[in-house]
Amino acid sequence: MSKITVAVLVGSLRKESYNRRLAKALEKLLPEGWRFDYLRIDDLPLYNQDFDQDYPAEGTRLKQAVEAADALLVVTPEYNRSFPGVLKNALDIGSRPWGTNSFNGKPGAALGASPGAPGTSMAQQHLRNVLLYLGVRLMGVPEAYVQFKEDRIDAEGNILHDDTRKFLQDYVDKFVAWVGQCRKA
Amino acid sequence: MSKITVAVLVGSLRKESYNRRLAKALEKLLPEGWRFDYLRIDDLPLYNQDFDQDYPAEGTRLKQAVEAADALLVVTPEYNRSFPGVLKNALDIGSRPWGTNSFNGKPGAALGASPGAPGTSMAQQHLRNVLLYLGVRLMGVPEAYVQFKEDRIDAEGNILHDDTRKFLQDYVDKFVAWVGQCRKA
Repeated sequence: MSKITVAVLVGSLRKESYNRRLAKALEKLLPEGWRFDYLRIDDLPLYNQDFDQDYPAEGTRLKQAVEAADALLVVTPEYNRSFPGVLKNALDIGSRPWGTNSFNGKPGAALGASPGAPGTSMAQQHLRNVLLYLGVRLMGVPEAYVQFKEDRIDAEGNILHDDTRKFLQDYVDKFVAWVGQCRKA
Repeated sequence: MSKITVAVLVGSLRKESYNRRLAKALEKLLPEGWRFDYLRIDDLPLYNQDFDQDYPAEGTRLKQAVEAADALLVVTPEYNRSFPGVLKNALDIGSRPWGTNSFNGKPGAALGASPGAPGTSMAQQHLRNVLLYLGVRLMGVPEAYVQFKEDRIDAEGNILHDDTRKFLQDYVDKFVAWVGQCRKA
């Protein structure tokens, strides 16, 4: 049986990204038969409505990967009290050309990490707003506003802290159940 | 005497952009001694925190243009119930490297146009939130949620409709007064 694929968008491009580490930690907690597909967003062009006549190859690649996936997971840092432009650009690219929104109907969730607890929560408020408009069947709870601490998740996504593991395992279990329900409905 | 320069960010890149037409219309209504400087944002790289070690030249160019200006005007369409990723990316780029936020303290305003009236209003809510965080001394009222109609402003920004001219002239006059007050304060 083929695996259930979750398309993952990580909003930060930096090498040592906390949010990428968080995504890797979640990946290790997936049940058998599930996998993450990390989508590349750093090489997308800045969305221009004139593209709709002749869509750039990187945009088509992103759209196909989203469409091929069974679910969507968006992991966002906070930049300037919202989510990053690079992530919004990926959502804009994937939502067009007009009438071909690749996110529509996809079961999904959004979470994120920031050095302080409020940061990612503000970013996620804007992000959830956009994802719902895009037709993502968005998990409302549990929420995950992760205050990132270096000693809790290492660079490979190994979880070094029991309460963190318990919290993230619960998140993954409920996400898996949410996606399962959406797929049956 | 040198002119008072308003740095203008237009959130849409398309050639026939309504928001660019709106900006051009506003430009024609400026008083003597004022000018618009349209900042280029289509060639900026997607912001990556690793840039902070060695900032890209296009980013430095944007920052210098913002810093050289006396005021800021942001003209935004709505994409997916928020403002475009390309515009957020420009704000992210201009706000960094850490501790060198180029927008801080700049008198400014945000407005926009969309085919339906609610579109730009939703984009502007997110945008205002970010601009305030960036330390822009943001004009609260008047607001301008412009429902764009082809027969009201032509491609060169000529205003073809008396009520539109009156509305936009009032907006420009109050923006000019706002910037003047901020410069004195």
